[in-house]
Amino acid sequence: MAADRRVITGFSNPTVKAFRALREKKHRKAAGKFLAEGLRLLTDALDTGHVPETLVLADRRDPHPLLTALEEAVERSGGEVIETSPDILSKITGKDNPQSVAGVFAEFDTSLAALDRNRADIWLVAQALRDPGNLGTMLRTGDAIGAGGLILLDDCADPFGVEAVRASMGAVFTQGIARAEWSEFESWLRSGPGQLVAASLRDAQPYRGAPYAVPCFVMVGNESRGLPEDYEMACDLRVTMPMKGRADSLNAAVAAAVLGYEVLAGIDG
Amino acid sequence: MAADRRVITGFSNPTVKAFRALREKKHRKAAGKFLAEGLRLLTDALDTGHVPETLVLADRRDPHPLLTALEEAVERSGGEVIETSPDILSKITGKDNPQSVAGVFAEFDTSLAALDRNRADIWLVAQALRDPGNLGTMLRTGDAIGAGGLILLDDCADPFGVEAVRASMGAVFTQGIARAEWSEFESWLRSGPGQLVAASLRDAQPYRGAPYAVPCFVMVGNESRGLPEDYEMACDLRVTMPMKGRADSLNAAVAAAVLGYEVLAGIDG
Repeated sequence: MAADRRVITGFSNPTVKAFRALREKKHRKAAGKFLAEGLRLLTDALDTGHVPETLVLADRRDPHPLLTALEEAVERSGGEVIETSPDILSKITGKDNPQSVAGVFAEFDTSLAALDRNRADIWLVAQALRDPGNLGTMLRTGDAIGAGGLILLDDCADPFGVEAVRASMGAVFTQGIARAEWSEFESWLRSGPGQLVAASLRDAQPYRGAPYAVPCFVMVGNESRGLPEDYEMACDLRVTMPMKGRADSLNAAVAAAVLGYEVLAGIDG
Repeated sequence: MAADRRVITGFSNPTVKAFRALREKKHRKAAGKFLAEGLRLLTDALDTGHVPETLVLADRRDPHPLLTALEEAVERSGGEVIETSPDILSKITGKDNPQSVAGVFAEFDTSLAALDRNRADIWLVAQALRDPGNLGTMLRTGDAIGAGGLILLDDCADPFGVEAVRASMGAVFTQGIARAEWSEFESWLRSGPGQLVAASLRDAQPYRGAPYAVPCFVMVGNESRGLPEDYEMACDLRVTMPMKGRADSLNAAVAAAVLGYEVLAGIDG
């Protein structure tokens, strides 16, 4: 099975260049593909039905049954398995100490229409979130609280960027992801059941024990500016977390997590 | 007062080089100084008694009363105010769109002995935390929950690095910061009152409504490995957050925040 496997030894190989280019958003968009790395993450992907189109393996890697399972899945689905040096793999992923495996995946459908709101009691929503680490962390938190997914409003970081994928710890494959403008989201939201909740300082009640209802859409805003006032005012519920110090806001991913866990406790209890 | 103000116009100026070098840990350590940028952050610093040794201003900046206050404070304390171009300021801070002001500060005392545990009901503790963004976010969260500070165990990222300072949103100046090895911390902790709590999967009870007691030390572990088992076993309380998805852990800064807010609710209520 591995007899016809392609081995790449040159840094200037066109495949290496094409994969490396997937670190940039414009190339991801043009190719409709993205990169993910690491055995655990790729196994999570496989377990949830996401088979990479191409699997890139470091030569001189340690054998591992999960790696074998990945190789077999890719070959079974007509994808390609490539072997290369750890140095070249490092060049592709942009990471100094690369994992022994990376995969190239087709980007998913990120339309709101693809989300089934009844699939989960909690959904996270981020508006103009700029930091890919925050975005990935929100996906990871969403997985932890049993959210259905993350809805990205307006001009957000790219969920398929290497840093976001890495920070998501695999949740990019398990959480639903949608991208929409606010007006489009608002129409979609109001076309069915759903409570929109924002962390806010305006006319807000304490977040603890607030009357959360499912499906609950937990929204946080841009890292610098927070949510636009009209978005907050369109919410069904505005809640505020205690701020005991000098600052008047939390990191966006932290706010989503503190609020998300409170919603989980509210709807579970 | 501004008559003898130094103006720097050259990228190769030794002062520019020295300040720029503060982006690297070894140079910070050698100089005992660190960089912070932005009017808001520097004003927070000033308000809490931290006057920069050197203030670097972009020429052609907009006038601002807080900037004037900063300049006056630095000159009053015998520090230096330097003017330079936005490009050079950008080179110093390493940020593409630099703020119009940066400050060079003396590093603080980060010994455990300098912390007064009775000053606050909550303290955050991080073990081998490697990501400066997570570290800064923990400082910011600490400010929000009214923590006394952050105790960094074993080999952590540097709280005085530019990225940590930035992510702290000024809390690097308002939160106490200590660095210690585990054994040293354990001795210090047990020499006075204090409940050590860890987010853990081992022999843990639900985090919600657990019997938190003040002063409460909330500990999280390394991003990849979590806490060493013996550290967890040395805790007075091990608690666990619901993990509804595939992952078995949260981002370290997120875990600290979710747990920290729960402790705050527990001891306030």
